[in-house]
Amino acid sequence: MAGAFLDELRALLGQPQVLVGVDCEPHERDWRGRFRGRALAVARPGDTEEVASVVRLCAARGVPIVAQGGNTGLVGGSVPDDSGTWLVLDTRRLRRVRNVDADNLTMTVEAGCVLQAVQEAAAAQGLLFPLGLASDGSCTIGGNLATNAGGTQVLRYGNARELCLGIEVVTATGEIWDGLSGLRKDNTGYDLRDLFIGSEGTLGIITAATLRLFPAPATRFTALAACDGAEAAVGLLRLARSRLDAELTAFELMGRHALSLVARHFPEWPQPFPEAAFAVLLEASAATSEGARERFEAMLGQAIGDGLVGDAVVASSHAQSRELWRLREAIPLAQAREGLNIKHDIALPVSAIPGFLRDMEASLPALAPGLRPVVFGHLGDGNLHFNLQAPEGVDAAGFLRQHEAALNRHVHDAVMARGGSFSAEHGIGALKAAELATRKSPVAFGLMRVLKQALDPQGLLNPGRVLVTDPGVPETPTPPL
Amino acid sequence: MAGAFLDELRALLGQPQVLVGVDCEPHERDWRGRFRGRALAVARPGDTEEVASVVRLCAARGVPIVAQGGNTGLVGGSVPDDSGTWLVLDTRRLRRVRNVDADNLTMTVEAGCVLQAVQEAAAAQGLLFPLGLASDGSCTIGGNLATNAGGTQVLRYGNARELCLGIEVVTATGEIWDGLSGLRKDNTGYDLRDLFIGSEGTLGIITAATLRLFPAPATRFTALAACDGAEAAVGLLRLARSRLDAELTAFELMGRHALSLVARHFPEWPQPFPEAAFAVLLEASAATSEGARERFEAMLGQAIGDGLVGDAVVASSHAQSRELWRLREAIPLAQAREGLNIKHDIALPVSAIPGFLRDMEASLPALAPGLRPVVFGHLGDGNLHFNLQAPEGVDAAGFLRQHEAALNRHVHDAVMARGGSFSAEHGIGALKAAELATRKSPVAFGLMRVLKQALDPQGLLNPGRVLVTDPGVPETPTPPL
Repeated sequence: MAGAFLDELRALLGQPQVLVGVDCEPHERDWRGRFRGRALAVARPGDTEEVASVVRLCAARGVPIVAQGGNTGLVGGSVPDDSGTWLVLDTRRLRRVRNVDADNLTMTVEAGCVLQAVQEAAAAQGLLFPLGLASDGSCTIGGNLATNAGGTQVLRYGNARELCLGIEVVTATGEIWDGLSGLRKDNTGYDLRDLFIGSEGTLGIITAATLRLFPAPATRFTALAACDGAEAAVGLLRLARSRLDAELTAFELMGRHALSLVARHFPEWPQPFPEAAFAVLLEASAATSEGARERFEAMLGQAIGDGLVGDAVVASSHAQSRELWRLREAIPLAQAREGLNIKHDIALPVSAIPGFLRDMEASLPALAPGLRPVVFGHLGDGNLHFNLQAPEGVDAAGFLRQHEAALNRHVHDAVMARGGSFSAEHGIGALKAAELATRKSPVAFGLMRVLKQALDPQGLLNPGRVLVTDPGVPETPTPPL
Repeated sequence: MAGAFLDELRALLGQPQVLVGVDCEPHERDWRGRFRGRALAVARPGDTEEVASVVRLCAARGVPIVAQGGNTGLVGGSVPDDSGTWLVLDTRRLRRVRNVDADNLTMTVEAGCVLQAVQEAAAAQGLLFPLGLASDGSCTIGGNLATNAGGTQVLRYGNARELCLGIEVVTATGEIWDGLSGLRKDNTGYDLRDLFIGSEGTLGIITAATLRLFPAPATRFTALAACDGAEAAVGLLRLARSRLDAELTAFELMGRHALSLVARHFPEWPQPFPEAAFAVLLEASAATSEGARERFEAMLGQAIGDGLVGDAVVASSHAQSRELWRLREAIPLAQAREGLNIKHDIALPVSAIPGFLRDMEASLPALAPGLRPVVFGHLGDGNLHFNLQAPEGVDAAGFLRQHEAALNRHVHDAVMARGGSFSAEHGIGALKAAELATRKSPVAFGLMRVLKQALDPQGLLNPGRVLVTDPGVPETPTPPL
């Protein structure tokens, strides 16, 4: 049975584009090593028609499909389960830049294009594609859209969804929907595009996209500001937005614990404000350089005058700017060197963040004495990575195994009580599907199930991801942490 | 049967909130007088719970519902058909501003709030809600979202969809989905919000929304520029975007025929460039005034130097700015005074607009000699109102009746061939439902039908709007034009 299916698959794609056995191995686990499955095979179609033919074959034979791009996700949404019955559909041979339209400020690219290649194709025309992630060099635009990726410039340019004008999709029945619109206005019917974006391969497979481009900024400024509390950081955000408006392109918060871990593991890197309760990394971009630096510095001067900021440094060179960004980017690395930790990818209304942090500071020690909350993230979007590091000197794995469930519940309860989200930019995948089933309102969850049933009635597209197949039996990650 | 239903409705809402007979009359026709129906009754619920109870009653009794806000739509989507069996659900008593959150830059308002009241509530906090339409003073935010309204600032701030972070919806079964998120990032499942936005009351009824606010600009500049062709106007757009980026908040095109109609019907209004092939109205907004005017004028100076613009005037006062905007806003009024015309609300990739206009100029005279194309609209978004005025001195009604179908087909064929849209910002409603059935790709149309069936299986929400009930028998507007 499996053999006959593989023969049919080889007939569609050619022998070299169907991987089996040990060749599947790199496609069967996520890069963090939290999810490890087993695939029936890996298919590597070369164009949209081939994707559609593979999906039709799977529909006819009842074979589940998980689409995979760079496989850089954090929630186990791009690897098969351990049944050995799923096909991994590798999109990376769909990597053409089909078109760049400078007058329309759009480009059309195939799903397997690596994000960095997309950025570079835009830059080659003097234009900007502003999506930027830590995994730029390996993640694909298809995966970025399937997960509605965020990043550090959402404040100004929006998430992946807002950066996309149109998509091409292979549906669960293997039809091709050509929705590659380069239009900024099109009110001819339901918004199919946004339904597939962010659905993590459970409703259809995105094969190409028309993306929104921007003029490349002429100049860019970076600053680090010391704030003595979260209220001050929120006040600084409000001031910066009102004084700079769309010129404010990044506003990243870093808590003292986060920066002290960087200091410990990267002691050679200078830290301007090692004692501050919070440091804020601000970036401003301007279309013309005249007066832009003065506007940025005047805003920071006012922030100091208003008592929102204790001190601030503005990078005077690209190298200094890179040094400031390096502090921010080093936090996850420093956390990894420090040892195991629990990651939370939460969003809150910006106005609710100071109260949430106060609440956590007061309540967490009682739950897990010695726990070290490492706070950092995209304050401008209300998105924090609120990670919990095991206490110093304990067996971190054992400690976290003991406390993880209760800590997750505690943090997410506090987030939800304030109208927040327990998954801001990483998605649901396998990791959070069970939690989604319990935390989503029953009405929203019911609507999602109705949509899944309508668009994928056989249930073959990434089954159990986002929506658990049976809410009573959640799939659990392979290792305990 | 109808009597029993009305008794039940009165029991839910109270006698005064159920209109019957002649009291329904203002709710039974659209303001342009193109659609005239007959309602079973008009229900005026006062809160979301009451909306839900009305919808549940209608679901139980099999009564179709059309939601109605300000009833200012252009496509007949907010009035009942002529069967006398539908309930009109008037949302205008849902008019509370529930919350303004200045730190989060959001506000939560009920669907029946008039757009201008929403703008004013934001302005009272020094903030901007940038959606702006000709019908500001009477359209409701619920209708704006149900139709994904556009307007003159889409270039900078997006359509209604992009201005909305979360919604509250009453589903077809009368459940309430509270999706009133004030979050800029939330990847917990499918994008239900964008599915209801723009669905014109056919998938659910929006009862409240959390909207995105912006800092109010400190200063604003308006200019009128004369361009000798559409290519030059597109070149000016490209230059203005690259030099001003997000400071460019409006870019409106006006063709010579359009301005000459204004000159004829409003001769007392000065026209800076009566002979230009095209005039472009540009507006720039800045968060701080220092240097902003210089940036704007330097860009226009470069445009003149580059030969994109023949001449330009920059308003030196608010009154002068209003005069320039009045020219743009007067075009539809001048058209109405001139007589009957056919309206097209099209979108194209910006880069395709010059070729489209050349094609129309060459091909239309053969189809309908003497026809006067009146071109104006939001060039910055690729959205043109390409209206066709009957020749001078003929019986306009007869002429247009004879030619309308062929002209629509000709214009929309040319639009679709260039990857455009035949309904950019006005929606589908009843007017364009038959055309949608023929012009939408079969795959997209099939997906839309599947979604409608899934979310409104009884087919009681605004039936036949957007998706024709039977594609073979389109509903036609009551008067011929």
